[in-house]
Amino acid sequence: MTVLLHIDASARAVRSISRSLSGAFVDAWRRHDPGVEVLRRDVGGAPPPFVSEAWIAAAFTPEGERTEAQRCELAASDRLIDELARADVIAMGAPMYNYGMPAALKAWVDQVVRVNRTFSFDLARGDFPLRPILGGKTLALFTSSGEFGFEPGGVRASMNHLAAHVDTVRHYLGAERMHHIAAEYQEFGDERHRASVAEAMQQAAALADALARDGARPAPALTKGERSPERRR
Amino acid sequence: MTVLLHIDASARAVRSISRSLSGAFVDAWRRHDPGVEVLRRDVGGAPPPFVSEAWIAAAFTPEGERTEAQRCELAASDRLIDELARADVIAMGAPMYNYGMPAALKAWVDQVVRVNRTFSFDLARGDFPLRPILGGKTLALFTSSGEFGFEPGGVRASMNHLAAHVDTVRHYLGAERMHHIAAEYQEFGDERHRASVAEAMQQAAALADALARDGARPAPALTKGERSPERRR
Repeated sequence: MTVLLHIDASARAVRSISRSLSGAFVDAWRRHDPGVEVLRRDVGGAPPPFVSEAWIAAAFTPEGERTEAQRCELAASDRLIDELARADVIAMGAPMYNYGMPAALKAWVDQVVRVNRTFSFDLARGDFPLRPILGGKTLALFTSSGEFGFEPGGVRASMNHLAAHVDTVRHYLGAERMHHIAAEYQEFGDERHRASVAEAMQQAAALADALARDGARPAPALTKGERSPERRR
Repeated sequence: MTVLLHIDASARAVRSISRSLSGAFVDAWRRHDPGVEVLRRDVGGAPPPFVSEAWIAAAFTPEGERTEAQRCELAASDRLIDELARADVIAMGAPMYNYGMPAALKAWVDQVVRVNRTFSFDLARGDFPLRPILGGKTLALFTSSGEFGFEPGGVRASMNHLAAHVDTVRHYLGAERMHHIAAEYQEFGDERHRASVAEAMQQAAALADALARDGARPAPALTKGERSPERRR
């Protein structure tokens, strides 16, 4: 049975385009695969705590040596990592705030990327000592932006620290594949915006259809409307 | 009299390299210019609130029409913007967390970038409707990272969503000039790390000397050791 982690980062509970997109993806997945288990994580509505000095100290203390206070400090991180670890697919809705992730989504990233849980560290690996522990997941990212042209080659490509940043950290989430669907032009409120949202809504449902049918592996012919991730490594 | 806004984003109160660097800069400035007024904003120790749906609604409500609850919602943002507006120089210490800003620093950015306070919005400007309201400031960014090679052309250049992101949003902070000094290799704990920190500490003091002497405008000859911002627009 597929486990789908549905994350939304918008501070808006209603009239959120990124929530509409991730919701369309999850709804379409459910139609294809009624047995899918959906884990819900609304970081926009209930942001995770910021990491603190005590959190850092606890995370770098070996598990067996942690005090009760240190275990409490990591409790939220443990819960978030446990549900991430269970997921086969991550559907992430994220509006662009000031050219990057909402702070609430970054707080989630900072809680889940943790030594010995989501990455291992070994200096014997030389200049690249970090390695992801989780793997095999597919990430579907749904973004909404007020402006436009953040795609590679676009007029604001160099200002994109949302999808490009998610693409950088997804390896530590165990996401070996990433799909990105973007709605743009929100602040213009014009025909370009309506067309962008309509197209993204269709793409979100089509991506779910394709992934659900193929067990989280996309059928290339069905994802041609979709944007490529900004960077692949 | 110069007003210097000293921001630190590290969750660590002690043994923080980014705090040491921003502190060295501020100390050197004070030696040159004992009359400097330093405003302190420790976002790592006391993170600003996340923006919420109520915050967004309040920010987009004309000032004269806001309810008392809406004015309260924006009170933290007002305080942060007021001190930013007063600053001639921003000294920002920021560790790289998961290839980007600490969530606490992003929360600060999301609080201070606000319509009709730090940017104006006018669709008559066409496809670039946003314009910064503040101006004339100099930003000195001091970063610390566990890994290395985040500079343009470096092995991790495409993974840099810290300095490059700050460089993108600084326009809305009124920072027309940006200087970036980076300490790297922290997780290796080796000679490269010690050399990188020592060099960055010297650069931080030298940059303050040059800027304080020239009234926040750098003397090119004295900033040659400094890194260029990743992107200029």
